[in-house]
Amino acid sequence: MDRYLDRITRATEEAARQGFAAVAVPPSPDLFYLTGYAPMQTERPTLLVLRPGLDPVMFVPELERPLAAAAPAGRDMELLGWRDGIDVYAEAGRLLPPQGRVAVGDALWAAHLLGLQAEVPQVTFAPASPVIEQLRAVKDEDELAALARAGRAADETFRQICGRTFLGRREEEVAGDLAELLVRNGHDQAEFTIVASGPNAASPHHEPGGRTMLPRDAVVLDFGGTLGGYYSDTSRTVVIGEPPEGFETVYALVQEAQEAAFRAVRPGIQAQEVDRVARRIITDAGYGERFFHRTGHGIGLEVHEPPYLVEGNERTLEPGVTFSIEPGIYLDGAFGVRIEDIVVVTEAGADRLNRSTRELQVVD
Amino acid sequence: MDRYLDRITRATEEAARQGFAAVAVPPSPDLFYLTGYAPMQTERPTLLVLRPGLDPVMFVPELERPLAAAAPAGRDMELLGWRDGIDVYAEAGRLLPPQGRVAVGDALWAAHLLGLQAEVPQVTFAPASPVIEQLRAVKDEDELAALARAGRAADETFRQICGRTFLGRREEEVAGDLAELLVRNGHDQAEFTIVASGPNAASPHHEPGGRTMLPRDAVVLDFGGTLGGYYSDTSRTVVIGEPPEGFETVYALVQEAQEAAFRAVRPGIQAQEVDRVARRIITDAGYGERFFHRTGHGIGLEVHEPPYLVEGNERTLEPGVTFSIEPGIYLDGAFGVRIEDIVVVTEAGADRLNRSTRELQVVD
Repeated sequence: MDRYLDRITRATEEAARQGFAAVAVPPSPDLFYLTGYAPMQTERPTLLVLRPGLDPVMFVPELERPLAAAAPAGRDMELLGWRDGIDVYAEAGRLLPPQGRVAVGDALWAAHLLGLQAEVPQVTFAPASPVIEQLRAVKDEDELAALARAGRAADETFRQICGRTFLGRREEEVAGDLAELLVRNGHDQAEFTIVASGPNAASPHHEPGGRTMLPRDAVVLDFGGTLGGYYSDTSRTVVIGEPPEGFETVYALVQEAQEAAFRAVRPGIQAQEVDRVARRIITDAGYGERFFHRTGHGIGLEVHEPPYLVEGNERTLEPGVTFSIEPGIYLDGAFGVRIEDIVVVTEAGADRLNRSTRELQVVD
Repeated sequence: MDRYLDRITRATEEAARQGFAAVAVPPSPDLFYLTGYAPMQTERPTLLVLRPGLDPVMFVPELERPLAAAAPAGRDMELLGWRDGIDVYAEAGRLLPPQGRVAVGDALWAAHLLGLQAEVPQVTFAPASPVIEQLRAVKDEDELAALARAGRAADETFRQICGRTFLGRREEEVAGDLAELLVRNGHDQAEFTIVASGPNAASPHHEPGGRTMLPRDAVVLDFGGTLGGYYSDTSRTVVIGEPPEGFETVYALVQEAQEAAFRAVRPGIQAQEVDRVARRIITDAGYGERFFHRTGHGIGLEVHEPPYLVEGNERTLEPGVTFSIEPGIYLDGAFGVRIEDIVVVTEAGADRLNRSTRELQVVD
């Protein structure tokens, strides 16, 4: 059985197991994963509909039917073209059961969901991520190889950026270097390059700007790209010369939390437990309020995807699941620290897909 | 009053006028239009909540609060940061009225909408486009100037591509030329470059590929990019040497339909009526089944945005509304024709923002 038909079959079985009468998947990484088809989501709905016991069908704008037919899984499903001007939700609604539970892709546009809800008011809709996550979270050999290649390319990028000049340059210049190095080291595309220096490093998703970097700045670097469709994502915090006051203690704490969380990973552990391990160390040292994001996120075709390493997520981890471990501490007006590796769960515990040194690097 | 506060105020008033107790806007062109803030939509909800009679508030992940605060309208609204691990929909739900009608941005993720629906089950949700469209569809002077500049840059691109070689080259090579010319003529970015030759031209959204172009091919070119945040989008159909059998009749018909639709545009006409004018000409000539898409779409911060020129859309057009007029005829296995201009409604009728010749161009 080919890759896509296998995935479609498994998703349909998983939907049935979870009690869903249908799954409706819009253009998204989910759709690409299931069919190899990667259009944009637009005001014209495209929906792959999986129904236990029935053949898969894709509802597609008539003017894009040739594109859908040419997709890798174009022959594995029936294509239903719809034309502008018809009552599109009435047509799409006919593909859904009149009642029961229907899962919809998490990223389906609200306008489309509201249209469907009005057509089949007896149906209970729910997000499809619990179904699709059962497949996507566990990477196959090809996916793991792609993620490992992306990780190595990101690591080499970190090694090289440490040899560049920081002092006196603007954040956005170093961000440009990172983007160039990500591609030079094998990425198809650089996707994000956070360079957050000095007080800016206290903003976890800071957008690099015109700030000129100064002596004793701590600089959070958080960058990644795609390679063969799969993401890299790694963070390191470096200092320009002498570290700022109080930095080394905080750095050591984040490093310890990151290491402890990594060591906690093994098959059967709950996602939230990995978060707790990192958080407990930081909280016990009095910085709990300054670690105000989850410990990590799944990664693959998306840079953020389930499972999330967050309090409340009881999902158990299993071999082949890939995610980030990225505790951080952010001190307003002073500095921030984050250390992030992508890891994969193994039979024995976990492997890191990033191997850059986690010892503090001093840059010029 | 500044631009963003004015837009926020007008959107809130329009929501009240349409009977909505609140509008919730996720990261999207709508949010950018209202606040100048342009994050990506992710699994972590960000929502601008507008409530008649109350101050605007933005619900934002704590780790992105500094970015939201730095946005152009960051000071025009209260920012409510939320931290990973809390019950995010319970918190967001508190910003909504317990009952009544709430409008949500059309592109809000279904997972977020379902989360909100569970929190405020007495609320009736509806798409926000009817509210936001009242503002966004009518362009102000700056927006019209940007669209006009983008249109001229696209026109110059068409003029120049007609001087390039088509015969013997692959579609994707000409598509690369178009992307390069769009930027060289002033676009910040090329966004789409359809080159559909010979039988491929019968697929309206064809992705240019490895097909080598042959003598007597008709080639549909449909391309655009962004300039100062605003889109261009124009289509022309050219022929390589002698036109294929039956082509000239079809071309003349599409040209006539495009011209008639343009001449029909005036303040007060319904969007669907413009579609009907173009469709009637093509249908009366026996090609109705081969014109299987709407006549046009609004354009601005998005390449497709309301109003849509489609049967069933009774919205009346008013001065300052911008949209495409792009009838087409697609003959499977043979050829396709599409002619597309962006137009703006004026007090007197309409102006074209694309001025490329619509006479058939023969290329080498």
